[in-house]
Amino acid sequence: MDCSSPELVLLPTLLDAENGVEQVSAALQARMLRLHHLVVESEREARRMIRRILPKVDINQYHLYLLNEHSNASELVHLLAPMEQGHDLGLMSDAGCPALADPGSTLVMEVHRRGWKVVPISGPSSIMLAWMSSGLNGQHMEFHGYLPVKNPALDAKIRDLEAQSLRTRQTQIWIETPYRNQSLLYTLLRLLHPSTLLCIACRLNGGPEEWIKTCTVQEWNGMLGSNLIPDLHKKPCVFLLQCP
Amino acid sequence: MDCSSPELVLLPTLLDAENGVEQVSAALQARMLRLHHLVVESEREARRMIRRILPKVDINQYHLYLLNEHSNASELVHLLAPMEQGHDLGLMSDAGCPALADPGSTLVMEVHRRGWKVVPISGPSSIMLAWMSSGLNGQHMEFHGYLPVKNPALDAKIRDLEAQSLRTRQTQIWIETPYRNQSLLYTLLRLLHPSTLLCIACRLNGGPEEWIKTCTVQEWNGMLGSNLIPDLHKKPCVFLLQCP
Repeated sequence: MDCSSPELVLLPTLLDAENGVEQVSAALQARMLRLHHLVVESEREARRMIRRILPKVDINQYHLYLLNEHSNASELVHLLAPMEQGHDLGLMSDAGCPALADPGSTLVMEVHRRGWKVVPISGPSSIMLAWMSSGLNGQHMEFHGYLPVKNPALDAKIRDLEAQSLRTRQTQIWIETPYRNQSLLYTLLRLLHPSTLLCIACRLNGGPEEWIKTCTVQEWNGMLGSNLIPDLHKKPCVFLLQCP
Repeated sequence: MDCSSPELVLLPTLLDAENGVEQVSAALQARMLRLHHLVVESEREARRMIRRILPKVDINQYHLYLLNEHSNASELVHLLAPMEQGHDLGLMSDAGCPALADPGSTLVMEVHRRGWKVVPISGPSSIMLAWMSSGLNGQHMEFHGYLPVKNPALDAKIRDLEAQSLRTRQTQIWIETPYRNQSLLYTLLRLLHPSTLLCIACRLNGGPEEWIKTCTVQEWNGMLGSNLIPDLHKKPCVFLLQCP
């Protein structure tokens, strides 16, 4: 491999295309500007994000390649063609860090297999923002991605998360499709022990709607129906629990 | 609570005081500049970080309060005195995100108990940078902080991490005190199954010494003693494994 061997550059994006551009580093802007080939989750969202992060860029400088839940393993070879030709390649997710809770990790692994370089750029991560804001165990944490959608799998998983935290005191973290947030909250408050600590971190974009609260399930139940809990419907949320 | 109620602001710092200032966002710089009271892990490191992040600031604008592994629960009341008086309070760790793998989470929880606001700012996190760069499972991850230092606890823990990933395919992440990195690597290569994927992410500061590699334990063993593995001694590393 010569010194001009290509890099896969991991580019976090904003957590919300409408807000938070000031949370992006100069390093991210500079590196994105120097790329011409980007693997993205959806073209529309990628273009919106690029325009927010680099308002003055000519969007036509980017060749976009799709990698999402519909992609299959055989497409990886096609996605890596720019690197085969010696170009650096960027990897972006629709929001936040690429390769986490999205299909990008298969591409990163393929780059490792070929012995090429992977270069991560710092950027917003709703998982980290929620975790550090929760006040829950910062030494031991498990992230579960999305929970099962349907019962009995959903109830069983929630009970399992709590039982595991009772054994280890670890922080359990997961996310939910935003339109199911409100019903998930009711399910959590019905199933979890009153003393379990629950944190909800909602719309973590540094904007006026950002809202983060940790208290016991008993205290959450006492706030239900009051205006102390904002409407979570369709707002991106991270959920965290820990047994005290 | 009136609209002037105080905020606890979570301020990530650089992963390396010598490198990576371009990875910090304008939001972090602006928010740090507007604070006068900071809870820090060590005064010396905090002053170094502030000078790197805000080269022109008068360091005397900051009142520093210590929270580290020697602090006890009764000191939290003292640390929160500035907030009691209506001032915003910053929380910084020696490197990276506060309240994760450091004692800051007790302070964050106390702020939640009082119903005050917690405001996280995006910034560098070696855990996230390592995880997204690893190519390992991005949907399910467990972070373990530091492993036990001595045997038989260390060997047992490593075997347990691998057994758990074999069951769940989750990514296991942990960190090590930098002067023990090299001996940990030998222990890992001795204990883990040849097919287990191991990632080492070393000095994640965007600088020339940053080095990230994922391959099987068998492949790592084949590289031992060659110049394909850099000297890890005293360089901050994140370790990750996943059973394929």
